[in-house]
Amino acid sequence: MTTVATPYHVPLQSPLAAIYASIRDELQQVEQTLRNQLRSEQSYVDELCRYGCLMGGKRLRPALVLLSAKACGEIETAHLTLAAVLEMVHTATLVHDDVLDGATTRRHLATVNSRWDNEASILLGDLLFSQAFFLASSLDDVFACRAIGRAANLVCEGELRQKGTRGDFQLSEAEYLTIIEAKTAELCACSCLLGAHYAGAEAAARQRLESYGRYLGIAFQIADDILDIVGREDTTGKSLGTDLQQQKPTLPLIRLLEIADADTRQRVLHLATSEAETAQAPLRDLFHRFGTLDYSQQQAHHYAARAASQLDALPPSEAVEHLHTLTEFVVRRFA
Amino acid sequence: MTTVATPYHVPLQSPLAAIYASIRDELQQVEQTLRNQLRSEQSYVDELCRYGCLMGGKRLRPALVLLSAKACGEIETAHLTLAAVLEMVHTATLVHDDVLDGATTRRHLATVNSRWDNEASILLGDLLFSQAFFLASSLDDVFACRAIGRAANLVCEGELRQKGTRGDFQLSEAEYLTIIEAKTAELCACSCLLGAHYAGAEAAARQRLESYGRYLGIAFQIADDILDIVGREDTTGKSLGTDLQQQKPTLPLIRLLEIADADTRQRVLHLATSEAETAQAPLRDLFHRFGTLDYSQQQAHHYAARAASQLDALPPSEAVEHLHTLTEFVVRRFA
Repeated sequence: MTTVATPYHVPLQSPLAAIYASIRDELQQVEQTLRNQLRSEQSYVDELCRYGCLMGGKRLRPALVLLSAKACGEIETAHLTLAAVLEMVHTATLVHDDVLDGATTRRHLATVNSRWDNEASILLGDLLFSQAFFLASSLDDVFACRAIGRAANLVCEGELRQKGTRGDFQLSEAEYLTIIEAKTAELCACSCLLGAHYAGAEAAARQRLESYGRYLGIAFQIADDILDIVGREDTTGKSLGTDLQQQKPTLPLIRLLEIADADTRQRVLHLATSEAETAQAPLRDLFHRFGTLDYSQQQAHHYAARAASQLDALPPSEAVEHLHTLTEFVVRRFA
Repeated sequence: MTTVATPYHVPLQSPLAAIYASIRDELQQVEQTLRNQLRSEQSYVDELCRYGCLMGGKRLRPALVLLSAKACGEIETAHLTLAAVLEMVHTATLVHDDVLDGATTRRHLATVNSRWDNEASILLGDLLFSQAFFLASSLDDVFACRAIGRAANLVCEGELRQKGTRGDFQLSEAEYLTIIEAKTAELCACSCLLGAHYAGAEAAARQRLESYGRYLGIAFQIADDILDIVGREDTTGKSLGTDLQQQKPTLPLIRLLEIADADTRQRVLHLATSEAETAQAPLRDLFHRFGTLDYSQQQAHHYAARAASQLDALPPSEAVEHLHTLTEFVVRRFA
């Protein structure tokens, strides 16, 4: 039985426990960095920061930085700093996302917007963003600042593009993929790239790990979008059903509109644009009937496999095995 | 008659016109950088960015970068980049501020939150933040990233602290000053510091210009808070009266509570905590009767004079004269 302490919310029985145990000391240092960075003399700000810190959850991006570093060499001090930076950027986007989605629960906790208010969420997100960039600039060179600035920018543009597609049921699968690549996969790709770079990896290995992170992120987001439809709030620990409610087209719906006959298509459009909560159940039935949830799961598996294939050229190691396990984990969440 | 083109909203008859004319070509390059940086292939994102760009207004921070550079040496390419970066950070905070304040007008234009919605504002602000940091990292060294990351972080913490003081009518003048120093003056200080640094200034000159920017920013914010009480929406071009409405204690109110007799104090507290719009007029009368608007103006003048005194040790030049003019301008807005 693994005895890893989990301030980062990984249940001991999770398939991830062994992964986190392998980088336990380093993750604890990352937690310490997060706590030190997000401390304030003002009790109001301090409380908000400490609470916001809990929102990030399973510390996937720090794990990607650390495992990518180990896959290419040694974990250096720069990695610990950057792992904290990426978690802060990620948390900033989550805190702002929860405002956009009007979400009330995340990680089984009340969201910042529901416990405090939207204003606190906006300002906390901004604080996390700016503190992350400040911390990234504590390194000696601008490589990390550039990579993180670029990734954060793509995340924001992806979010904005997604917002622009609300109620746009013409959205193609390709456009959907471009959006989730930007809003979710870029930060995972950046985590792996920085892990490899600051471990002194060659260009080829760096690029492979960056691609690994990108495909993993795409698989993760497709899975997340499926969970928003079929998940249970008590197990996922967050508000669900928000995509349908907000008319945000995700893969199961996009696919359904693509393959359904004209009559069904009309019915789907009617249900998808309805504001009644009762529209969700018949939509779910149609996803099942037309197999578009299965199709979406297959797509998630496809991207997870592409992520895994990037690892083939790396020298075998425990870290590489753990990166493999992650590709299985991201698509197994809805199994 | 100066014939400077003013995409940055400086009326030709403004005392600032001569200042802006002296750095016209450079400011136009900054505008070009802003336009290039904030372009998107997605029409929704592109329109939002172009509109957001107009919100910044008179380009005070770019002017501070450029004039500080000229006061110490030559304007380099780095200055043009950094001027755009600082304007983007500033605009990001304005766009988010307008959400927090529920403001509907800025620079005589509908705010992003009122023309689009709060979500668009949150995402646009995030995009501006991240794009600014990305652009800052295009420089060869981390100096600018550190200075901007630190300043942006202080701005956000200042905003959060100010939010924490809503309805706190115990707030002292000293605490108020600490908050406005963080939320407004830091970015001005940073603009001047970077202008001086990248012009190769000595440590002493750099520090003096940084202090100049800080005192100027404090004077500017006190003046802004006075304008929120006594200004006219048709001349300032933005929503006013929001501080009182949101129970945000600013200097005229803080001073009034400090010097008023017990009975008046009770009355002020009653009015300040009232949600009725009719409470604003009697409060304004009390500010006038107890001279706390005059007192606040004197304080603004005091900080403007401290800013000006920082310039004494610099070699005389046209740029230094323009920096002097700015100290007069910030406090003359309410004259």
